[in-house]
Amino acid sequence: MRTSIYHLMVEFGDCDPAGIVFYPNFYRWFNASSCHLIEECIGWNRLRDDFGVVSMPVLETGAKFINSATVSDRLAIESSLVECARKAFRIRHLLRRDGDLLVEGFEVRAFVVPRLDDPQRQRALELNDEMRSALT
Amino acid sequence: MRTSIYHLMVEFGDCDPAGIVFYPNFYRWFNASSCHLIEECIGWNRLRDDFGVVSMPVLETGAKFINSATVSDRLAIESSLVECARKAFRIRHLLRRDGDLLVEGFEVRAFVVPRLDDPQRQRALELNDEMRSALT
Amino acid sequence: MRTSIYHLMVEFGDCDPAGIVFYPNFYRWFNASSCHLIEECIGWNRLRDDFGVVSMPVLETGAKFINSATVSDRLAIESSLVECARKAFRIRHLLRRDGDLLVEGFEVRAFVVPRLDDPQRQRALELNDEMRSALT
Amino acid sequence: MRTSIYHLMVEFGDCDPAGIVFYPNFYRWFNASSCHLIEECIGWNRLRDDFGVVSMPVLETGAKFINSATVSDRLAIESSLVECARKAFRIRHLLRRDGDLLVEGFEVRAFVVPRLDDPQRQRALELNDEMRSALT
Repeated sequence: MRTSIYHLMVEFGDCDPAGIVFYPNFYRWFNASSCHLIEECIGWNRLRDDFGVVSMPVLETGAKFINSATVSDRLAIESSLVECARKAFRIRHLLRRDGDLLVEGFEVRAFVVPRLDDPQRQRALELNDEMRSALT
Repeated sequence: MRTSIYHLMVEFGDCDPAGIVFYPNFYRWFNASSCHLIEECIGWNRLRDDFGVVSMPVLETGAKFINSATVSDRLAIESSLVECARKAFRIRHLLRRDGDLLVEGFEVRAFVVPRLDDPQRQRALELNDEMRSALT
Repeated sequence: MRTSIYHLMVEFGDCDPAGIVFYPNFYRWFNASSCHLIEECIGWNRLRDDFGVVSMPVLETGAKFINSATVSDRLAIESSLVECARKAFRIRHLLRRDGDLLVEGFEVRAFVVPRLDDPQRQRALELNDEMRSALT
Repeated sequence: MRTSIYHLMVEFGDCDPAGIVFYPNFYRWFNASSCHLIEECIGWNRLRDDFGVVSMPVLETGAKFINSATVSDRLAIESSLVECARKAFRIRHLLRRDGDLLVEGFEVRAFVVPRLDDPQRQRALELNDEMRSALT
């Protein structure tokens, strides 16, 4: 199972009037962590050059918020590729502070490529064995 | 079922290098829409004054992304209180452009109040009949 | 002098732990207001089709913060094209709540087009009389 | 002159449809860098405990954008306290990539404390010699 860790520090501007992280920021960090994970597993240059991938949209995302985080907290997101379907893959995110799980989230994403019949439009890329082995 | 509609226009800065809305912004808008919904159902002043509510944290959120949105799109989020448990309630968000469903999301949230034994700490408020009827 | 007004309501997530608008959001709104102003003066389609404009980067921005804004405030930004140089123009933003000036800001921007000798690179467009009259 | 360096990597979600950093994010990072600078010079605990400081609002900010930054760029912001007036101080930010200056910005800020006659309201703190020596 491919895994990478994304480290960050909560800044003042990430928090809301309740003094805790405004929750959409967790998804912002999940997205960043996923980008780094994919870079480590396959690499964006290779995705673009060898497979024609133009982006990696989300199909579904979600998160359970177990405990809040606040200014100056140092957080670590452990992101893992936990599932790989025909055209989509699932990344699990475990966000921790000093080892304590604060948020558990996921993203289901796909790679999209231009359509052959109409390059202005896009379609999800079917994951071949080579990609599948890079991702899992 | 209590429902409200939140209208917005997608701005350039809401979109990413792929030219579509950066998905954490959908959650930002869901959050705004929920705040307006609760204002309409109960009112923040009453929540604070009559019930001592200090905030409305999320316990869980999620979204399915059916179609993307881009700069200048006019979006409408229909937010509804679809479930009310003992200490938590679920808001469903249907985000549409010209009637087409683009994103379907939800938030499970609770109202929190200071703890009697330690006002620095907080606990989830048990929803009484009065609140329950205001919310449903 | 070309002017447009951008209306917005401050949401919970726009504010920081001090309970007031996190200041980079004012620039986010200035940017949105400028985009609408340019749409009204010239139109993005015409900029792209007739002039080859691909974007409108900022060269300089700034703001004076006279008074703070908070959750639920309804704000209006009056944006005006106040100056037009050879390759750059200056937009002034006056952000008000109920008529009271809260923030006074500006952006100096240019239109950029692909370079003839190397379309991957860009150069600032020299503003001709037609554009100048549309902008002033 | 007190100086600190803030390091960051540009993420996909920090960039706009033009593929470059959406400029309000530079101010977001300036703000974070200022918070770290003040922590290093005086410390937020001491500001709160010894001086009663409740926040550090901006009075004025600005930036010149010399070159753009894009996804995966590693940036360093050198933030320095360059001026200290009776009730306000000026922080200069030099944002670089591999030593090249991309953005030059500043923030004029003040420390605010509750008013004696009405603790709900606030006033700017006059900087005494002790603070002045900590800041310069």
